[in-house]
Amino acid sequence: MERRIVIIGGGAAGGTAAQFAKKTDRKASVTIFEREKYPQYSKCALPYFISGKVKDVIEFSKEWFEKAGIELHLETTVTEIDTEKKVIIAEKDGEQIEKSYDALVIATGANSSVPPIEGVRNGDGLKKGVFSLRTLDDAKGIKEYLDKVDDVSIIGAGLIGLELAEAFHEKGKRVRVVEIFPQILPSMVDEDISRIVLDAIKDKVEILTGHRVKKITGENEVDGIVIEKEGEERRIETDMVILATGIKPNVDIGRKIGCKIGEKGGIVVDNRCMTSVKDVYAAGDCTEYIDLLTGKHFPVGLGSIGVRQGITAGINAAGGNASLPPGFIQTRTTRIFGVEIAAVGPLLKELGENIVHGKYTGKNLPHYFPGGKDVTVKIAVDGDGRIVSSQAVGEGSAMRINTLACAIVNGMKIDDFVQLETSYAPPIAPTLDPMILAANVVRYRYERRK
Amino acid sequence: MERRIVIIGGGAAGGTAAQFAKKTDRKASVTIFEREKYPQYSKCALPYFISGKVKDVIEFSKEWFEKAGIELHLETTVTEIDTEKKVIIAEKDGEQIEKSYDALVIATGANSSVPPIEGVRNGDGLKKGVFSLRTLDDAKGIKEYLDKVDDVSIIGAGLIGLELAEAFHEKGKRVRVVEIFPQILPSMVDEDISRIVLDAIKDKVEILTGHRVKKITGENEVDGIVIEKEGEERRIETDMVILATGIKPNVDIGRKIGCKIGEKGGIVVDNRCMTSVKDVYAAGDCTEYIDLLTGKHFPVGLGSIGVRQGITAGINAAGGNASLPPGFIQTRTTRIFGVEIAAVGPLLKELGENIVHGKYTGKNLPHYFPGGKDVTVKIAVDGDGRIVSSQAVGEGSAMRINTLACAIVNGMKIDDFVQLETSYAPPIAPTLDPMILAANVVRYRYERRK
Repeated sequence: MERRIVIIGGGAAGGTAAQFAKKTDRKASVTIFEREKYPQYSKCALPYFISGKVKDVIEFSKEWFEKAGIELHLETTVTEIDTEKKVIIAEKDGEQIEKSYDALVIATGANSSVPPIEGVRNGDGLKKGVFSLRTLDDAKGIKEYLDKVDDVSIIGAGLIGLELAEAFHEKGKRVRVVEIFPQILPSMVDEDISRIVLDAIKDKVEILTGHRVKKITGENEVDGIVIEKEGEERRIETDMVILATGIKPNVDIGRKIGCKIGEKGGIVVDNRCMTSVKDVYAAGDCTEYIDLLTGKHFPVGLGSIGVRQGITAGINAAGGNASLPPGFIQTRTTRIFGVEIAAVGPLLKELGENIVHGKYTGKNLPHYFPGGKDVTVKIAVDGDGRIVSSQAVGEGSAMRINTLACAIVNGMKIDDFVQLETSYAPPIAPTLDPMILAANVVRYRYERRK
Repeated sequence: MERRIVIIGGGAAGGTAAQFAKKTDRKASVTIFEREKYPQYSKCALPYFISGKVKDVIEFSKEWFEKAGIELHLETTVTEIDTEKKVIIAEKDGEQIEKSYDALVIATGANSSVPPIEGVRNGDGLKKGVFSLRTLDDAKGIKEYLDKVDDVSIIGAGLIGLELAEAFHEKGKRVRVVEIFPQILPSMVDEDISRIVLDAIKDKVEILTGHRVKKITGENEVDGIVIEKEGEERRIETDMVILATGIKPNVDIGRKIGCKIGEKGGIVVDNRCMTSVKDVYAAGDCTEYIDLLTGKHFPVGLGSIGVRQGITAGINAAGGNASLPPGFIQTRTTRIFGVEIAAVGPLLKELGENIVHGKYTGKNLPHYFPGGKDVTVKIAVDGDGRIVSSQAVGEGSAMRINTLACAIVNGMKIDDFVQLETSYAPPIAPTLDPMILAANVVRYRYERRK
């Protein structure tokens, strides 16, 4: 009999799992149950959808899934799972759909976390004018409301917060970002690197680091926020508030059927994306996995990881044999207000003792060639001289971080990395790339310390 | 007594050797003898100097060397070296300069090779209107002559030939490039990759592959060329001929003092840049070294390698302890007519049997994000599945090749490379980078073959 695979969630992880399950076993029946009304779309593209730069965020259409022979049920909620009989029941428009499965993949993603700020809610929902950004409907709601307002306050200067700040700025809005931590991008880069980014963007957007939002004011709709720093409070008039304070893995279904939930609140999966429940896999933002460098768990929140897990879960659910590395290095990047930022590996504060680090800022082109732009590369090595993390700001950062990601997964030592023959041509890169010069700084410090 | 280091040649390798010798031993006396009248300049920048994009190719001025405490003698020719007494004699303006040395570094570079074409010479020199490009004076000569002509023929569609074609095109000249091999960039990329480049540039420049230049016509100055393909000859009127047919290591001095010359015509050096003669080092284009992947010798012709050898030679000449990897991987890149090209590792024809290769062409951005451009990545693996070479065409090729260079020096297998977490963000790169998708193609082929 043909193999039956059911996937809960049709986002990047779930959609990819379906695709690879079908690729692995052409005869398998593959079914996706998705709560939302849209087929697979890019959540990372939502800020660009709001700015208008991206017209359509759909990655794979309903027709695409149909052609691929994948059954996609939209606006469908899973109501029951019997893991003994291996039957799943879902509901759409009041009708029940019952499916037996041989393998189940949970890809339920994550929800925006709503911080406990006074006045954030009105009854069960968010106050009018308060938004979080997680779904395409969220984005559409923000886009619509935005047309009626002049001033927007964003809570949280992480990746999404700053990407949205840029989108609102491009739409001609007055924007401020309030961040409780003393730095922007607190979970993406170290403080010193965040300062370089801040210097480059602070003329374009008001950023209030070290500020807590105490209250969102306005009876029926937002008319201001009260922020506080070191005991001093002040009220700012604003028309709209965006909560960009992070996400929480959506593990309701996973928990209900007994999947082990980890310390970071995600479904625990192994390197084959298996959960603790037989024949149940999980992938994407609803899971947590191991950080390769620290060995600690982290909640998966990157699309690039979700897709890689989706591939693995899909292949294995279809009876194939795929496995992931023992840990992820969390390569991450963005461009905000024209500034490219990228990082790989843990933050310094997450790494143990004995770490040596250094950075170098230089042009991305030889000094004599016109148009060169600054790029800063920071590298950290452990007590054995092995590269464990890197961060970069400026033109070409993401691609340089890819090279350092490759060095990290190979356990490459800084002594060897400085020897790497990087591409050189006057219109492309200097003889010694800034990442090599950064490595030289680190090697020198590491040698002195030995 | 202070250590005395003499360096013959003040190009990228020699200048870098001087710099690092001085950094290694601040008290050492460091002297450079340079034939030309210019301090260290970028040879790779000469095509851009001709186009006018680069105004000044000097990398380190005479004043810079002075401040660094390095004695730089320009327009100075070495006339005698006594390797027993360790004395070197040079001549400048008819005056003799005698220097004793503890360590000598030969960095005499390379000369343009002049192909044996009828009519290429006039007496001892090249015919009027025939040029090669190696020195800044060559570039100045070309620039001056160019003002008087309309039509230029370039012999050789290698890196320099095509970079010059672009420069002449930008100056409004009619340009053709004649290449004896059936493909452009024959020593940089494989035929299939060269075709992608050719397709992208062929509307902007006339390229005649598989054509031999039989004759350069014109009594006193160039007025045409006769080219031949498969026995058919034809004459083309042209005002200027550029020889871009490669370089020959300049080993006159090295040979004279007994340095071992290798099969590729370069001075043989070890991983510390030592020659076969005691206390004599060599670096840059006058040397040959081992290709890491094939184990065979190749003539060093890349600035990036010359500089790395210069660092090593300089440190060791000053009594330090530096060493290079056992072989180079020859990472190389350029941008011609807006097309970025990069490669690392041997060409397919230089690799042995049992090679599996594949390529992938895709956008450098997610399909929904505007402005994405095609990039092609090709990867080859050996019988053990280890990545041994890679080539790329399109936006971001050079930086992607850096990542593959890192994979190669780490002996990374294709199975592991496909798992590499590359940077992903809508304005920067797709979830699965084209280099990962190329790796997937190769992995699939490799698995099938096992």
